[in-house]
Amino acid sequence: MENTKLKAFLPLFYIVWSDDLLTQKELKTLKDFIDNQSWLSQNEQGELMRMVDISAPPSRKQLFQWKTEIEEGLKALPEAKDIFDLSVWLSKNDKTILDLEPVFNNLESNLGIAGEEAISIFKTFENTYTSIHQTVSSFDTQKLTDLLDGDYAHVIKKVKGIISRPEFIYETSTDINVYREKVLQWCKILADEKLGNVAYPKEYGGGDNIADYFAIMETLSYHDLSLVIKFGVQFGLWGMSVLFLGTEKHYKKYLKSIGTLELPGCFAMTETNHGSNVKGIETTATYDHDSQTFIINTPHDKAQKEYIGNAAKHGQMATVFAKLIIEGKDYGVNAFVVPLRDKKGNLSKGITIGDCGHKMGLNGVDNGTISFENVVIPKEDMLDRFASVNDYGEFESPIPSDNRRFFTMLGTLVGGRIGIPRSALSAAKSGLTIAIKYGDQRRQFGPEGGSEVPILNYRMHQRRLIPLLAKTYAMHFGLQYLTNRFLQKSETEMQEIEAIAAGMKSYVTWGTRDILQECREACGGKGYMSENRIDALKNDTEIYTTFEGDNTVLMQLVAKSRLAEFRKSFENMDKMGMLNYIYEQTRTAIMQKNPMATRKTDEAHLLDDTFHKNAFEYREKVILASAAKRLKKLIDSGLESYDAFNVAQHQMIDVANAYLDRLILEQVQLAISNVNDEGTKIILTKLKQLFALSQIEKNKGWYLEEGYMEAPKTKAIRKLVNQLCWEIRTDAVPLVEAFDIPDSCLAAPIAFL
Amino acid sequence: MENTKLKAFLPLFYIVWSDDLLTQKELKTLKDFIDNQSWLSQNEQGELMRMVDISAPPSRKQLFQWKTEIEEGLKALPEAKDIFDLSVWLSKNDKTILDLEPVFNNLESNLGIAGEEAISIFKTFENTYTSIHQTVSSFDTQKLTDLLDGDYAHVIKKVKGIISRPEFIYETSTDINVYREKVLQWCKILADEKLGNVAYPKEYGGGDNIADYFAIMETLSYHDLSLVIKFGVQFGLWGMSVLFLGTEKHYKKYLKSIGTLELPGCFAMTETNHGSNVKGIETTATYDHDSQTFIINTPHDKAQKEYIGNAAKHGQMATVFAKLIIEGKDYGVNAFVVPLRDKKGNLSKGITIGDCGHKMGLNGVDNGTISFENVVIPKEDMLDRFASVNDYGEFESPIPSDNRRFFTMLGTLVGGRIGIPRSALSAAKSGLTIAIKYGDQRRQFGPEGGSEVPILNYRMHQRRLIPLLAKTYAMHFGLQYLTNRFLQKSETEMQEIEAIAAGMKSYVTWGTRDILQECREACGGKGYMSENRIDALKNDTEIYTTFEGDNTVLMQLVAKSRLAEFRKSFENMDKMGMLNYIYEQTRTAIMQKNPMATRKTDEAHLLDDTFHKNAFEYREKVILASAAKRLKKLIDSGLESYDAFNVAQHQMIDVANAYLDRLILEQVQLAISNVNDEGTKIILTKLKQLFALSQIEKNKGWYLEEGYMEAPKTKAIRKLVNQLCWEIRTDAVPLVEAFDIPDSCLAAPIAFL
Repeated sequence: MENTKLKAFLPLFYIVWSDDLLTQKELKTLKDFIDNQSWLSQNEQGELMRMVDISAPPSRKQLFQWKTEIEEGLKALPEAKDIFDLSVWLSKNDKTILDLEPVFNNLESNLGIAGEEAISIFKTFENTYTSIHQTVSSFDTQKLTDLLDGDYAHVIKKVKGIISRPEFIYETSTDINVYREKVLQWCKILADEKLGNVAYPKEYGGGDNIADYFAIMETLSYHDLSLVIKFGVQFGLWGMSVLFLGTEKHYKKYLKSIGTLELPGCFAMTETNHGSNVKGIETTATYDHDSQTFIINTPHDKAQKEYIGNAAKHGQMATVFAKLIIEGKDYGVNAFVVPLRDKKGNLSKGITIGDCGHKMGLNGVDNGTISFENVVIPKEDMLDRFASVNDYGEFESPIPSDNRRFFTMLGTLVGGRIGIPRSALSAAKSGLTIAIKYGDQRRQFGPEGGSEVPILNYRMHQRRLIPLLAKTYAMHFGLQYLTNRFLQKSETEMQEIEAIAAGMKSYVTWGTRDILQECREACGGKGYMSENRIDALKNDTEIYTTFEGDNTVLMQLVAKSRLAEFRKSFENMDKMGMLNYIYEQTRTAIMQKNPMATRKTDEAHLLDDTFHKNAFEYREKVILASAAKRLKKLIDSGLESYDAFNVAQHQMIDVANAYLDRLILEQVQLAISNVNDEGTKIILTKLKQLFALSQIEKNKGWYLEEGYMEAPKTKAIRKLVNQLCWEIRTDAVPLVEAFDIPDSCLAAPIAFL
Repeated sequence: MENTKLKAFLPLFYIVWSDDLLTQKELKTLKDFIDNQSWLSQNEQGELMRMVDISAPPSRKQLFQWKTEIEEGLKALPEAKDIFDLSVWLSKNDKTILDLEPVFNNLESNLGIAGEEAISIFKTFENTYTSIHQTVSSFDTQKLTDLLDGDYAHVIKKVKGIISRPEFIYETSTDINVYREKVLQWCKILADEKLGNVAYPKEYGGGDNIADYFAIMETLSYHDLSLVIKFGVQFGLWGMSVLFLGTEKHYKKYLKSIGTLELPGCFAMTETNHGSNVKGIETTATYDHDSQTFIINTPHDKAQKEYIGNAAKHGQMATVFAKLIIEGKDYGVNAFVVPLRDKKGNLSKGITIGDCGHKMGLNGVDNGTISFENVVIPKEDMLDRFASVNDYGEFESPIPSDNRRFFTMLGTLVGGRIGIPRSALSAAKSGLTIAIKYGDQRRQFGPEGGSEVPILNYRMHQRRLIPLLAKTYAMHFGLQYLTNRFLQKSETEMQEIEAIAAGMKSYVTWGTRDILQECREACGGKGYMSENRIDALKNDTEIYTTFEGDNTVLMQLVAKSRLAEFRKSFENMDKMGMLNYIYEQTRTAIMQKNPMATRKTDEAHLLDDTFHKNAFEYREKVILASAAKRLKKLIDSGLESYDAFNVAQHQMIDVANAYLDRLILEQVQLAISNVNDEGTKIILTKLKQLFALSQIEKNKGWYLEEGYMEAPKTKAIRKLVNQLCWEIRTDAVPLVEAFDIPDSCLAAPIAFL
């Protein structure tokens, strides 16, 4: 092209021929444009037209030549702000072109090109903000690890030492028989190390330390989760059912050999037809006074015990839950110790075992079904802490209601609902460690002419992982609180603690599910390869949302307990008007305190603990009052309460979630206020703020509906969430390193690039 | 208890001793209460106190006696509305008690008991609303099936016939070698049935019918998904890369034997270091003019081909993407046919294969890595539709830009982004069929004294599954639209279709992920057993969100294409003020039309197509205009466009989502408006309304922020979503039966209770 004026078109021509987003339509737009420009001579028009002829595209060489010329322009005019500036330079500041700025801008619009954006095609950027962001640890990871481990550092260290030994190298066989045997061997090593019976009384070989037991479950969960569940079935469910439901005679008979794993056993409660509604189980234990025995029976196929861990292969005995029948009368669900097979694996008389076979995960655990046909056990093998049959063959219990007795029995086993979420959270920590370390190293795309950028520098990638990292820390402190409440429990607090445990179990296992899903996707194809372990972490924990109580069912229980507490907190609710008044009062109380707060968007306010606390409490209280009001209205309108609760079921989940959010935030704020080390405190404060604001953002629809916040505020919160993600990103790797997961447990090659 | 007045306490005593939610605290409350009642004599107080003595609880018999008395009261007084009514009756209408209503109500509150709810403990309800809800088909399922299958009923029927044969019984071995061979055998059967080459030209043995190919992929996906992916790798990726990137000489040489599966092959594009940013791959194909050959090399470990299906075991050749180098100059990414191994499985010279080993799913597909060391191929094995080396050893191409040429090549392979979401949706349909049929049969809990209730009658269970069923139908129509657009494509529409395909691929595979997650949880422990197939469905489709383009990356592309279109639709956007004006205009246009609409909550309005359409369009337009405005502002403020796009990345995903939501809704409305059968139309209309309202509810935070809706409206929408779930529940089973998935494919025992 000799005519310098025409060179003004070069940037546009180059873009049209090179951009993968532009098509024939754009060539037509260009042609029409050229056709319509009266300032061009016919010759000039002809020359330009040849350059946008689809049947005779420029050669690759030609295109390269154009680009070279344009780049010269950029070198000469580094301050060029859009491609029109380049056009002017290329035309040697031709006066005609200079005057055509609006016309060229218009053309760019019609081509769908933004001149300011498009100029970046010709620029090279080595140091964009996005490129230069990187890991810079702002705190001492060891100090944070110490804070997380707290009083249990000693036992955590011991367990990590054991699971890092060569014999704990992961089993890769897909043969479930091989896997099950390996897991059993691992459990034996742990038993030999006296980790299994740590919670049992010292006189039966134990360590009398339930707190350590939870720390062990949590730390083991950095390793294979089949191992954790098999361990939990043996020493937790089986052993502790004997410990908490039985009496001294049972301890003497069984507890020591359970603790050493000489006597592998099961916890046989769930039946095919009764899982969530476990009160309805149908297995029977019929008392025969003449022989002083119970006869255990499975009345029909669907009343078989199902999903029972340790049953398919290794269990020799089981705690069996069955309806006690004395002289034809049903005395509700009670627990009995029943033999399944001898040491050689021969089944006991009357026992039929099924194998649950291959599962989505946890294939190192031998889950099975158990059916009983006239299985006779001696009278003393009824676990008789809460109920017994006396010497006259009569039923005796300090708890008169069958229902209440059963739930009291279950209450003693609440520890399972602490161990499970703590195990889940360890899996979440492993997943995040893998995904964040990978995201810090994996590079993909980058600015024009610059090198590729770590994917963790991309805002969406941060959005996917960093709030979950904040939530993981928050849940850690929440579970510490739950554990401490449990360890220091008094009788009168039990119901509250049971509700917190049921809620935290659901909250944390659902959280883990979401975290591992995001981690899988964040690692792309690498996340799909079993060697990188997200497969196992995700599939093994998948059932955590179901076992130890289906999350949806548990959340309903939490909500019911909150409603009962709510009623107690008001003296009089016989009038609907009163309830309305309470509801409205709750709704407006916080807002009235500070009428400007609904629109306040300054950063100091949005990052403030008090704002977060108020917002969480407000949500908790209003949702609770509103659910109570709704239920009352439905029942007053004539609905049976069973139907009313069904209609409001969705709200019940909200009640429980809002309660747990508030409770966790409170514990996070409290825990961080007690941190002394400055570096640790600063980074934890950012995580706390991100957790709080993420949860508010997630519920912004609700806050806007209630008028508690207005749009400028929720929009400001969204921006601040993005900003916090960006800031925390540089500490993200140290933050996962502070989990201090042994390399051999983490194992994923992509975590060690 | 002889004193009838005191019997007024029986209901409270019974509840306190039997309810599993009440504790010692409540006993104390009762004691304090009794202590403070001046109307009670000391004797009376003493009698009552004995009944709330924790150290001497009533016997089980005693408790039963109380209950019997209370139940007599209920029989005599069936209209009793709360437990105080019962207290009065039990006291034989004692005047003192009658006057104590507020006092008793107060006591109930302090105990956390709602008298209206608590009375249900003593009532038996056989026919609550919740209990009697059940499956009642309101339409002809066959007619709906016909509508879904449309023009492809014939080929769908043929494929279903084949995959229902005994030889297609699922492989249950966990040995991946066994599984891989089984999948290969299945593929051979399909090839023999001429399903593999259906899209190839007739002269090379094919059926010249790409539409059927998609229907085959979709129908096969009711069966094993490893089979589908292996089939897709062979006949889609491998075969169609030869077809679309090669020319006649390649067809003659390869196409027939690809179509019969005599020549298994691979599509080798992705490398370890370049997945999403595939333009950056580093494998080289260096032209040697003397020998008229290309020499293929893997420059370093991380440039090996990775995740390549058919590579680990069965592939004999591969379409290899590599940078073409001629005389030291790089001519961008081009495609070459390269031999990997002979028919006996011996590797070709210079080829190194790795096995990706065990994966989260799709273990019937032999994914592997490929490295090349001086692998020599003849010149004619460059796939030369878009670029070639001429007789003088010079590069030639009708597309001058390397970048654009590469994306044009990729564009020809867009079919993969249609096949994958259609396959995903079939998996979602299988999951929903299993979960909904199970939920219709599985009973758990129930009203006091009544039988247990199908879990699908619970509102939360409906909330979890029914909106996803509606979304599945919506996505079905969306994918029909995408397929039709693709089949009828003209050159100028290609970019739009590529954007829709990229978007629908992401939308549907993410949707499938969510659906299968909900299905797993909705089936509880049963959903975790591999025999019920949610395991395989979930884990196999897990990678669908990553392969054929990472969803997050694809959604960015969709958004960029929307932004380009947006710019074209306005003549002038050189001034920020103008863009602001456009933004505000868009924002207010719809609202101005109907100022009352933001608060309108009548059902007719909320269920109306036009309301839905307007709301979806409004969201699409405002989000798009707002993203454009934001980007411009960021760039104007001095950010490089690369950084600006990163800052706005989160908004880009919103742009794409809002676009796809609108597009799908439009197609659903259109499809249903063309339905003639009344029954089909009515049920599809409900599903359409539920889809629309669920999506609005999901985005209510945004609508409230924008002021497009106010709280009364979003709350009314939530109620209507619940209501629609409740109504559709009775048709839920017929709605999944209309998917007409062969029983042998569905296979899950829980779907056939």
